[in-house]
This record gives sequence, structure tokens and C-alpha cells, in this order.
Amino acid sequence: MILIINDDGIFAPGIKFLSGVASKFGRIVVVAPDKPQSGMGHAITINSTLRLQPTNYHGAEIEYACTGTPVDCVKMAINQILKKTPDLILSGVNHGSNSSINVIYSGTMSAAIEGALEGVPSIGFSLCDYAMEADFTQADKFVASIIENALKHKMPKGVCLNVNIPKLKAEDFKGIKVVRQAKANWVERFDERKDPYGKHYYWLTGEFVNFEPEALDTDEWALANGYISVVPTQADLTAHNALTKLNYFENHELDRTSR
Amino acid sequence: MILIINDDGIFAPGIKFLSGVASKFGRIVVVAPDKPQSGMGHAITINSTLRLQPTNYHGAEIEYACTGTPVDCVKMAINQILKKTPDLILSGVNHGSNSSINVIYSGTMSAAIEGALEGVPSIGFSLCDYAMEADFTQADKFVASIIENALKHKMPKGVCLNVNIPKLKAEDFKGIKVVRQAKANWVERFDERKDPYGKHYYWLTGEFVNFEPEALDTDEWALANGYISVVPTQADLTAHNALTKLNYFENHELDRTSR
Repeated sequence: MILIINDDGIFAPGIKFLSGVASKFGRIVVVAPDKPQSGMGHAITINSTLRLQPTNYHGAEIEYACTGTPVDCVKMAINQILKKTPDLILSGVNHGSNSSINVIYSGTMSAAIEGALEGVPSIGFSLCDYAMEADFTQADKFVASIIENALKHKMPKGVCLNVNIPKLKAEDFKGIKVVRQAKANWVERFDERKDPYGKHYYWLTGEFVNFEPEALDTDEWALANGYISVVPTQADLTAHNALTKLNYFENHELDRTSR
Repeated sequence: MILIINDDGIFAPGIKFLSGVASKFGRIVVVAPDKPQSGMGHAITINSTLRLQPTNYHGAEIEYACTGTPVDCVKMAINQILKKTPDLILSGVNHGSNSSINVIYSGTMSAAIEGALEGVPSIGFSLCDYAMEADFTQADKFVASIIENALKHKMPKGVCLNVNIPKLKAEDFKGIKVVRQAKANWVERFDERKDPYGKHYYWLTGEFVNFEPEALDTDEWALANGYISVVPTQADLTAHNALTKLNYFENHELDRTSR
């Protein structure tokens, strides 16, 4: 049983494409937000309630629209709807890139990370094309290959995949690269406007900056060079390299034993 | 200049305590959500607009309530309100733990991570007590020590601190430990109810499970043993150990060069 989730909402074309490709590998369950949830990161709904609505937009055996976030959808699918873990969770295909730093803002990837936390092999797919009419089919062979390999091999525990697909014609893909998340960030600029009542409001906009354009082992490099990028991704945010460098925070003058 | 953010909203007592302690070390700016934003993770507002309202709840030199998420607050503070980076960002003090896996759901910690991405030394503080009347003052010496050390020393680039404070009396704290994020998860259970119109709705609830209760180098261990935990935290989600184990996804039969 393959669970399909996304963050663009249950009506998004990316979900239709992904469930189409995945249906060759197993029975399909779709649980997706009832409205767009882009940029929701790992948000969960704890201060308000959740609802489920059975739907039939994708002809899946089990299909629900959920009022919550992508992570809520994973939790509800496993713990409330299915009451068991699926064999695989596929999230997306997202309309737009989730490479490098975008992973932490991405509802698509947060759903995949949540799947890995629940012990299910999970993959987030994103196409570097924000258009609603984006052509996912150009990459269908690669998407099928990644799904097949995820089902055939045992993925490391707690690890999911962040798969990004460059906007290319089928014949122009060079292949698939397993790479790391590039160090990058957004430089924000707020677009300030006035509403009809004279009050200010703001749109978040920004420019993407790759801090290591020379590195050859990153997702940004892979995408810029015609490859589909696969980044093994997990929820350990510890900066392990920094652990031994921060001993100065252990202020022993304040320790009980020393007083 | 020290920027104070939180996720419990601008009225939460934790923000008042933190700006009080921090005011000994610099001028205070407060930019906080205009309503509770717990569990919002790294969500940002891209499908709707943001607004700012000047406030004076904390007597800070510059103080705004923002309609967005904690991460939106950081972006707006730096790029729209201050138009420069502060010397330090302090997030919290959160009402409730953000140790181990809670870090990825936490708006408090996402604000600190966003601060680190913007190149600012950033610290998220959380007290393991969900009560609104929680007594933050018991830990004031430790909070002051951590702030002082963060200003005195240069923190590694892109790294922020996840500081969790056990619910103890001042005299019972054993000290501060620099530790890693414990492997843990929530086992969810949805509380299903019927609204007055006969329709089902759900509350997300769950039980916390520490997967490595024996480990002595984790935040969960530190907190359970009377220490304040300090976890260096960053936004690289790559599972670096898995990079070399997933070559099977690079299906070379599909490569352009091999066709």
C-alpha cells in the first residue's frame, strides 16, 4: 500500500501524476490537504481541530482531503485512517523546487520526514517548475525507477529522500545523483503595499543565493547540470561538529556541586 | 541590539521574562506573533499577506506584533523593521519543552534556526512546563550566563542553540550540558469527537517516546538529570552517513550517456 501526500492540495496536478506512476507498484491511498499548504514546513495543528472529507478526485481506493497541514495528513493517514503503516509514502510531486535550504520550509518534504519518523520509507518529489501546468511526464521513467528502488532496497532507518527534478525534456536528463543539501539561503525583500483603507501590508519575496556554487557534490550542482538530485534527509538537526566547540556554555561556576 | 521573538504570541509571559534578563546585555527589540503559533515549525507565509502592528506590552525600544509565523517575524524584523542584523536573537522562553524531536515542530526553535541562517547568533529557550503561570525566574542565572557567553564567544556559522530548562527550583539545577538531540518520536492518537451538528472532528494527541533512554549524551538525559540542555542546532537535514549507502538510486540504465 502506497500513501500519497502533497502540500499543494488535493486538486494539484502533481498528485495525479505521482499516483499514476505509483499505481504500477501497489494499491494507492491519497490523503492530502484540502487547500494549498506550501511553505508550511513541519507545522502541525495543535491549537485547533482537524477534519477529514472522503473524496474521489484521483480514483484511489482510499482518498481523503484533510483540513490540516501536510504533516497532519501523514499522522492522520497512519494513525486514524489506515490504522497501520503503509509500505511507502510518496509526497508531491511539488510544483517548484525543494532543493537545498528549501527543504526546511517545504510542506512536501516535511511530510516525507514525518513518514521516516513513523518508520515508513518516504520520498518527497519536486519539479523545478512552479507552473500549475508543469509537465511531470518528462521525468516519469526516473520517478518510477526511484519508487522501484525504494521498495526493493531497505532504506536506512529514519532517512527519507528529497528528490528534485530539473525542468528538462525527457531526452535531456543526464541521470540521477545522490548528493547532499547545498548550503544556501534566501535574501528576503518585503514587497510593501497599501490596502484600499490606507493600511500597509507585506508580501514575502526574496532571492535565492547558493553559498557554494563551486561544490560538485550538492543538489544545486546536480540540478544545474541536468541530473535529478536525491538527498538522503533526516530529522536530526544537531550540529554534531559543533558539540565539542561549545563547552564554554557549561558555566561551572553556576553548578550546584561547585557551590 | 537584541531581537526577541517567540511562538506563544506577544502576550506570553515567557517573552517578558526573556526581555527582562536580556536587557542587561543590550537594547531590546521585540517582534512576535500577534497570536499563539505553537507547532508551526518552519512555516512561512507565502500564499497570503503579512501585517505589522506597533505595540508597547514589553516597554521595548522597538516592538511589533506580526500576523505571521515565528519565522516570518525573524524575516520581517531583519529585512523590514530593522533593515540590519541584530547582535543576537533570543526566541522564547517557550512554555513547554522543545527537546529532541520537538525541535522540528517548534516555532520557537524555527525562529532561532532562521536567525542562524541570517547569520545572527541565535538561541531558543524553552522551559519544560506548559503552564501559562510557569516560573521562569528559577533559571534566570543560567539564562543570563548563556546569553553572556553567546555574546562573548563567536558561535559556529549557521549554528544556533536549542536550550531546554527542566522544571526545577533554582537550588536544584545541577548545571548546563552541551548535548545532542535524542532520537525520539511521538506516538499519535487522534481524539475523535462529534460537533453539535453530528460531524466528526479530531484533536491531535500523543505520547512521547525516547528511543534511546540509556544514552548519556542526549538532551533528554540532561533534562531528566537536573541539567539545562544546550544542543547546537542547524538547518542541514542531509543524512550524511547515508550518502554512500544509496548509490542504488543512481539507475545508470536510464542515463543519457548510456543510451
